[in-house]
Amino acid sequence: MMPVVQPTVVLNRQRIIQNISRIQFKAQQTGTRFRPHFKTHHSAQVAEIFRELGIAHITVSSVDMAIYFADHGWTDICIAFPVNYLDWDRISALSKAITLHVIVDSIEVAEFIVRHAQHPLHIWIDCDTGYHRTGIPWEHLDDIGQMAETLSGGLHIRLEGIITHAGESYSCRSLAEILDVFNYTLHRMQHVQRHLASLGYPHAISLGDTPTVSRCTSLAGIDEVRPGNLVFYDLTQLTIGSCTAQDIAIAVACPVVSKYTHRHELLVHGGGVHLSKDRIESNGRTIFGRVIDPISWDFEEPYMDIVRLCQEHGMIKVSPEQFERISIGDTIYIAPVHSCMVMDLFFGEMVCFTPT
Amino acid sequence: MMPVVQPTVVLNRQRIIQNISRIQFKAQQTGTRFRPHFKTHHSAQVAEIFRELGIAHITVSSVDMAIYFADHGWTDICIAFPVNYLDWDRISALSKAITLHVIVDSIEVAEFIVRHAQHPLHIWIDCDTGYHRTGIPWEHLDDIGQMAETLSGGLHIRLEGIITHAGESYSCRSLAEILDVFNYTLHRMQHVQRHLASLGYPHAISLGDTPTVSRCTSLAGIDEVRPGNLVFYDLTQLTIGSCTAQDIAIAVACPVVSKYTHRHELLVHGGGVHLSKDRIESNGRTIFGRVIDPISWDFEEPYMDIVRLCQEHGMIKVSPEQFERISIGDTIYIAPVHSCMVMDLFFGEMVCFTPT
Repeated sequence: MMPVVQPTVVLNRQRIIQNISRIQFKAQQTGTRFRPHFKTHHSAQVAEIFRELGIAHITVSSVDMAIYFADHGWTDICIAFPVNYLDWDRISALSKAITLHVIVDSIEVAEFIVRHAQHPLHIWIDCDTGYHRTGIPWEHLDDIGQMAETLSGGLHIRLEGIITHAGESYSCRSLAEILDVFNYTLHRMQHVQRHLASLGYPHAISLGDTPTVSRCTSLAGIDEVRPGNLVFYDLTQLTIGSCTAQDIAIAVACPVVSKYTHRHELLVHGGGVHLSKDRIESNGRTIFGRVIDPISWDFEEPYMDIVRLCQEHGMIKVSPEQFERISIGDTIYIAPVHSCMVMDLFFGEMVCFTPT
Repeated sequence: MMPVVQPTVVLNRQRIIQNISRIQFKAQQTGTRFRPHFKTHHSAQVAEIFRELGIAHITVSSVDMAIYFADHGWTDICIAFPVNYLDWDRISALSKAITLHVIVDSIEVAEFIVRHAQHPLHIWIDCDTGYHRTGIPWEHLDDIGQMAETLSGGLHIRLEGIITHAGESYSCRSLAEILDVFNYTLHRMQHVQRHLASLGYPHAISLGDTPTVSRCTSLAGIDEVRPGNLVFYDLTQLTIGSCTAQDIAIAVACPVVSKYTHRHELLVHGGGVHLSKDRIESNGRTIFGRVIDPISWDFEEPYMDIVRLCQEHGMIKVSPEQFERISIGDTIYIAPVHSCMVMDLFFGEMVCFTPT
């Protein structure tokens, strides 16, 4: 293992392939379209792994990101963020160039789109099934019906159905809780689906979020799933119960720059601008990352955690034995709290892969 | 005010000039060198304002950042992060090209530098005066003396003295607490200074951190100060008591993309990849940013706060009246929790300035 001079993202290719294949297989069992969310990696390099596995439909979270992946040859993209009509020129240009899916949750914007669309545009009605971020509340069937009616007026509009992101699954801490979110989300979406069907509108169902899609046993009744984090997972997903430690496929390799004898702490170059300020509670303390072994890709025990994080500094608490073993100049591999934020921070930089 | 299509950093030039000038004046009173930390803005555009005000010495937090500013014509730079000897080639090249200051806190690295330095290199001994991040504990006078002895052996080494960052001032919540940190930090540094003086070594004192430097009444006895955040301040500094709301000179302008009637919340395009995941507690809730008026640059009352933050989504809680007043397509100005992280996230992108 070469020492790294600066913080560097290292990806475990074998685990990435396993993680993608598992969901791909589950989706194939029920004829569900697997449209992975590429915001997690935001990387043309990583995207190639998906392409080699036969993935052709993708999700992104911004117009910038849609343009980036369109430029890298992806031709069927869903922007899973409500349409910002101020950005219409770029959205319209994309809808001419590729098969573009968008989501809407306000009548005002839907009317704007109907008036302005000049190229085929696939639209999903965003439903709020409990996360309370975006979407029309699922119980408001009249509003959802009115939205479908508005959209059907557009010459170039291809209404697809309803979409949701059950982000409340990020508060789960057990399989039972994850499955509960999955079940009520699907029931609520099917309730809306029946209503749209009764009115004669298209009514496909698209679900997101990595925890429920990772742990549910069947995707029956779901037309499309859009998990993103599954490609790498991270400490957050491990805490939720979406994955095992053996599924985590991303680490930030950081150089040890100094050591502090009296408190058994290591300084690594690896701070908030590399790992983000996302944090989790673990064993009664707030942590910003956990050290893994670079050979086994398993946690080093006793756990070595980043317990404080500044812009460029990461402070790792270690045992007396670990303190003796680790030297200045060594490379430490850190499993991050939130892989999506890490990849955003390293956007445009080369990432390294472990050998397959 | 033109509406923004995408999240955009807006800087208040007049407040920036005021913020810089206030510290510059205070430093001039005591002949203290003002060496502002440029990690906060990390922007050649903003750096020009400092240059116009006569600033010539700067601080950065990484070798990358030192190279960036050297490329933009800055010729006296301190890298306030312990030397990573794996990165020696770049450090050595910089020390040839410009006046370079570095910090060390381990004998092992000091010995490496003494063996390898081929160009003049200014060195500060990093002391831990209470923050427990980097540095030799200030009470360990023997270790500090040994470090000075080691460094004096180097042909090209210019030992300057001792440096500290009293980062514990970020836990302060009142002027009294800030001044307490300032006073004990200075006393501890002067204790070390007397020891080095008694041994005949150089013993200048360099202090960092925005809270103490902003609020102390005099910098007497201090040779150099390196605050960074003072250029913009932010909600964290306001909470600490380092500044007033009228000093905050940075906002992220975000478009309103959707509205949710039943919960009086606005969706803005402005998430963790723009504002970072830094947060503070305010009025019993966790917030990620607070809306200001784009004309007065004062908080809009009742406060409109970002109460939830995803990768691209910001959710702003508003009153019924504000909800009626604000429309989809409007631009909202958000004072961030941590300005340094925002500027890192926008690194390489153009920032806007208010008219002077």
